[in-house]
Amino acid sequence: MTTRNDCLGRDAHDPLAALRDQFDLPAHVIYLDGNSLGARPRAALARAQQVIAQEWGHDLIRSWNSAGWFDLPKRLGNRLAPLIGAADGEVVVTDTTSVNLFKALAAALHMQASDPAPAQRERRVIVTERSNFPTDIYMAQGLSAWLERGYTVKLVDSVEELPAAIGADTAVVMLTHVNYRTGYQHDMRATSALVHAAGALVVWDLAHSAGAVPVDLNADGADLAVGCTYKYLNGGPGSPAFIWVPARHQARFRQPLSGWWGHAAPFAMAPDFAPTDGIGRALCGTQPVVSLAMVECGLDVFGQTSMAAIRAKSLALTDLFIELVEQRCADHPLGLVTPREHARRGSQVSFTHPHGYAVMAALIARGVIGDYREPAIMRFGFTPLYTSYADVWDAVDILRDILDRKDYNVDAKRDAVT
Amino acid sequence: MTTRNDCLGRDAHDPLAALRDQFDLPAHVIYLDGNSLGARPRAALARAQQVIAQEWGHDLIRSWNSAGWFDLPKRLGNRLAPLIGAADGEVVVTDTTSVNLFKALAAALHMQASDPAPAQRERRVIVTERSNFPTDIYMAQGLSAWLERGYTVKLVDSVEELPAAIGADTAVVMLTHVNYRTGYQHDMRATSALVHAAGALVVWDLAHSAGAVPVDLNADGADLAVGCTYKYLNGGPGSPAFIWVPARHQARFRQPLSGWWGHAAPFAMAPDFAPTDGIGRALCGTQPVVSLAMVECGLDVFGQTSMAAIRAKSLALTDLFIELVEQRCADHPLGLVTPREHARRGSQVSFTHPHGYAVMAALIARGVIGDYREPAIMRFGFTPLYTSYADVWDAVDILRDILDRKDYNVDAKRDAVT
Repeated sequence: MTTRNDCLGRDAHDPLAALRDQFDLPAHVIYLDGNSLGARPRAALARAQQVIAQEWGHDLIRSWNSAGWFDLPKRLGNRLAPLIGAADGEVVVTDTTSVNLFKALAAALHMQASDPAPAQRERRVIVTERSNFPTDIYMAQGLSAWLERGYTVKLVDSVEELPAAIGADTAVVMLTHVNYRTGYQHDMRATSALVHAAGALVVWDLAHSAGAVPVDLNADGADLAVGCTYKYLNGGPGSPAFIWVPARHQARFRQPLSGWWGHAAPFAMAPDFAPTDGIGRALCGTQPVVSLAMVECGLDVFGQTSMAAIRAKSLALTDLFIELVEQRCADHPLGLVTPREHARRGSQVSFTHPHGYAVMAALIARGVIGDYREPAIMRFGFTPLYTSYADVWDAVDILRDILDRKDYNVDAKRDAVT
Repeated sequence: MTTRNDCLGRDAHDPLAALRDQFDLPAHVIYLDGNSLGARPRAALARAQQVIAQEWGHDLIRSWNSAGWFDLPKRLGNRLAPLIGAADGEVVVTDTTSVNLFKALAAALHMQASDPAPAQRERRVIVTERSNFPTDIYMAQGLSAWLERGYTVKLVDSVEELPAAIGADTAVVMLTHVNYRTGYQHDMRATSALVHAAGALVVWDLAHSAGAVPVDLNADGADLAVGCTYKYLNGGPGSPAFIWVPARHQARFRQPLSGWWGHAAPFAMAPDFAPTDGIGRALCGTQPVVSLAMVECGLDVFGQTSMAAIRAKSLALTDLFIELVEQRCADHPLGLVTPREHARRGSQVSFTHPHGYAVMAALIARGVIGDYREPAIMRFGFTPLYTSYADVWDAVDILRDILDRKDYNVDAKRDAVT
């Protein structure tokens, strides 16, 4: 049976252990919510100070050129690209995940609707999962409702139903690669192939994948993708999201949010929109520079390791957490929701408990910060850059104590956001 | 004839003079580009440090509740509202101006298309000015192209043509209240009445109005409005924009960017979108908190004065600039583009010069920071919170010197952004 000393021993030999020093984490906290808001890279404060005091305060408007503000979405996109199997010039960091998903979905529907083959043009269904992150479904519904051609958003109830749901009427399949609630990871290559075999396009949401699991968008045949920088990428609260448009689709990529940042000549002030070549056409308006600039501090840490090393530790941490919970909390009604199979697992572990919200509130009060998702799911995110094996031990130890002593308030009310 | 001493005398009696100390401006710079990027409120650095070190770094995910991150778009909207004649619960600070314009235009078209009167539902034209800020036109074109009902964006070439262009086919008139290039200010009340008399709706872009000139959206009968916080409101580079939906239109307000922040129950994780009541339905996705929080530092300064006081000084500054340029640079081919009539003038003064770009580059090199806009326009923004009468004198003195000595390089090439 694994002991705390075993965990300390694993930490002593952990090649990623030193990276924890690059994050500012409060004392007496075990932070298992990096899948909701990543921890703060120490460098982020100095970077923000530089942008605010020097670039904004001193250099003022000149910083659009001298500090490279205007190129920041593309420059950061190029830095992010290797983490998701994208090429140079295929990613921009901009806007929110929801807005980027709108662009990607609209572009994918447009590709189908403008296809030379008449049968392609008649496809009117967007397929996704009922368990997808709700905003993804909402954005698809919002877009569909505005297109008079008449699109339907079809929700499947399980992964197993996907193949049967994708057919000759399917325009786009929109999937979140790693499910926010269960931690289930789709097989991107097999699913993309399945979608393509049916003549549809596949749009991936990488919110819980980028920086969490190896992603190989080009090799796995994805069509378009979006994702988040404030979770595993540690970009800061609400930091701008990203969108990926592979080189092979860029010429056909059209999206309705046609703002001046996506124009071929943004400063010519011409009265007609003409999309720029390349990934720039996924841009729309002026970006929040301070929040955007800090994204680089998170990416800098990834530059010091590899997604392979991160994945190896992520699986070790989640395996350990499952093992310890099942051993040490065996008398309690905890139900593992996350797949045991490595290939199907993201970088989180979710357990149900009849009083899941109350137990999570008790954990948080004792410094173990995970979060809760309806229904009854306690969610624990494992971020290899700053989580140790001893953290896992200690988190389970506190969970066990709370459960054994029933030290939680079953009447606890949910906050607005957790 | 006005002398520099006269200007110093006016500064000594300027009730707004003390507010300059609340901004960090570099030495030896006369900053006349606050209409492009507002100067930095001194408080912004400390506010960002608080958000980054304490709220993000220490309190982590809990700050969504404890630091009020989730309510920030509405709270800042309520603080901004009095500056533009909006009521509590009618404004949110969120996304970019372009994205908000897309929402506002889409909502206005939807209001018309769902009107009980059949004639209203057939209106298919969006009227705007060819001289409008290009991204506004691009967003209208982008939206129109995606609506199969078939909308046309009609561009008028002058303000005088507007009445004739607005007719029974007009769904929406979209205007920027103060023109970015000329500084021309529309008569919001008269124009709104004209638009309504024709059965159309009017959407105002306040990018160069909010914090610059008194705006009274409700009293003047506007239908929807958007605007920018990083110009006269001094929110920081690319800080999130705002959108105003008056209480009377909120129940009918529908927009396609239906993300989870606009949902009636965002944490219920229901699979169908249901818009929340009130202004919240103009929200979409998670906002960049650090850039958003700093918007409050700019608004704090406005809380110490009034738009009436700001307007009085703005007109005095722009009058003085026009007077001094026309007196002291009378031998040079400068053409005033901005209206002399106070009611039609924003808070900027634009002059043409055959070598406008080169002259502006020379001014910037000598510390007078304005900017250049095609064709041949030198643009000078006057921000009463941190611009003195002596600044105006000194700027004109340097301009005169550059012109008299022809001390500019006519072959100067434009940077990417100025």
